[in-house]
Parts: sequence; C-alpha cells; structure tokens
Amino acid sequence: MRRRLLSVCIVAALSGGYAAAAFAQAKPETLVKQRKAAMTMQGKYFYGSLNPMAQGKIPYDAAVAARNAGYLEVLSKLPWDGFAESTKDQKDTGALPAIWTEPAKFKAAQDRLQTAVAALVAATKGGNEATVKAAIGDLGKACGNCHDNFAKQ
Amino acid sequence: MRRRLLSVCIVAALSGGYAAAAFAQAKPETLVKQRKAAMTMQGKYFYGSLNPMAQGKIPYDAAVAARNAGYLEVLSKLPWDGFAESTKDQKDTGALPAIWTEPAKFKAAQDRLQTAVAALVAATKGGNEATVKAAIGDLGKACGNCHDNFAKQ
Repeated sequence: MRRRLLSVCIVAALSGGYAAAAFAQAKPETLVKQRKAAMTMQGKYFYGSLNPMAQGKIPYDAAVAARNAGYLEVLSKLPWDGFAESTKDQKDTGALPAIWTEPAKFKAAQDRLQTAVAALVAATKGGNEATVKAAIGDLGKACGNCHDNFAKQ
Repeated sequence: MRRRLLSVCIVAALSGGYAAAAFAQAKPETLVKQRKAAMTMQGKYFYGSLNPMAQGKIPYDAAVAARNAGYLEVLSKLPWDGFAESTKDQKDTGALPAIWTEPAKFKAAQDRLQTAVAALVAATKGGNEATVKAAIGDLGKACGNCHDNFAKQ
C-alpha cells in the first residue's frame, strides 16, 4: 500500500464524525494546509498568468485566459471552509482575527472575489481583449481587498 | 501595498519570459509548491469526503458527491505542468525519476485519473448511489496506480 495515500486515508478515518458539508472532520492543521493550497492554486492562475497578460508582461492568449478564468471559477470557491473556528489559534498562517470577528465582512469579500471571477469568465466569452484585461484588473483588486482586511501584511 | 500579494507579483515579474501555455516562467520550487497544492486539493475532496462516503464512514450525500466530482474535474487537470524537467532535481518532493524517464506512462496515468473523474461526474448525474460509489472506488484506484509508479512509497 502507498504510504502517502494511506496516511491521508488514516487521517480521514481517525478524525471521525462529519461536518455539515459531508466532509470527514478535518484537523485544524489540515484545514490550514488545504486553504493555503487553494490560495496557491489561485495565485498560479492569476499572478502566474492572467495578471502578467493584463500588464503586457507576457503575450495575451485568449484561450489561456478563458481556461484560467474557468479554473478560477472553481478555485475561488475552495478556500473558505478552511477558515473554520477550529483554526483560530493555528500558527504559521497569515489569517487575521477579523476573519472570525467580522464574518459578514469576510463573506462579503469572498462574494466580491467570486463576482469578479464571474465577470472575468463572462468577459473571456465575449472575446474583447480590453474587456478581459479590465476584468483581470478588477479581480486583482478583489484579491487585494480581502488581503488588506483579513491577511497579515 | 500588501506584502504577500506583492511578493507573488514580484516573483512573476522577475521570472521573465513565458512558457508555451502563456505562464510567466515559474521557478522550479514554485512549480513544486503548486503541484503539491493541487494534490492537496484533490485529497481534500477525494479522501476527505468522497472516499469516506463510498466506504460508509460518513453519510452519502448526492449533492456533495456531485459538487466534489465537479471540483475534481478541474483539479485533476492542474498538477501536471508542475512536473517540468526543471524540477527534476528539487528536494522535498515525493516525485520519482520515472516521471521524466517514462513520460508516456506518466501521461497514461494522468489520463486514467481524468477518465475516472469523468466517469464519476457522469455517475453523479445519473443519481444511482451504488454507481457513484463504484466510480469513487475506481477513482481511488487511479490515484493509487499513479502513486505506485511515480511517487515515493
């Protein structure tokens, strides 16, 4: 049996119980690792590709822009359940207490991000390069808005 | 300006040039971090939810199964460009040399995974719990097949 995969299975099995979303209840450190992974993946497709396209640092590629916007449509949904109350006291995270003291504002920041991603997806379907680049800029501001308020600087 | 986001921008800007897929050329250590993140996210939705459902360890939830299958449809595409030749000598990775010495076999293992995910997506649309659980089992075997051959045990 494969040790790495097995260890993941054991963590899932030992954690017991289940969360509302039908997840095996994850340990706080696992939730932090997963939410960081979701952020890393968003960074890959935004800062590693879309943003430099919008800034003219790499050539604009409409197909890649559309594909990455589609990836971000999924990825932008994935970090948030990792910010469970159980993770409040975790170290090695940039998360600020405001995440838990201002949950409505945190949710609004997530919604702004997802709205900006949806606008980018729509723009890539429209096929106008300037519109896509503007939507990329708005998406970057939505990233920044959330980091300004809820992540250590 | 936000330091964490800024540092990501600077890495993207300094890396210069661009890969075939219109990515700012990422450093090997960044590629390793990103591919690990993609694996972590697949693990979240497979081992943290779908697999324990199939094993009866958490209640079966058809809506969550369908949602997670949809997430995996995207996530199962994301690790592979992180296994660039430039990462061959990176430490702190479970990647085996076979990834680069047997590229056709590695690609076939990726394809098997994506085929298994597509079958799971189709099963969740069909609505038969036993079919979904069987598709989850097949997907687990596809994960294991790739780890058996291309990841350290």
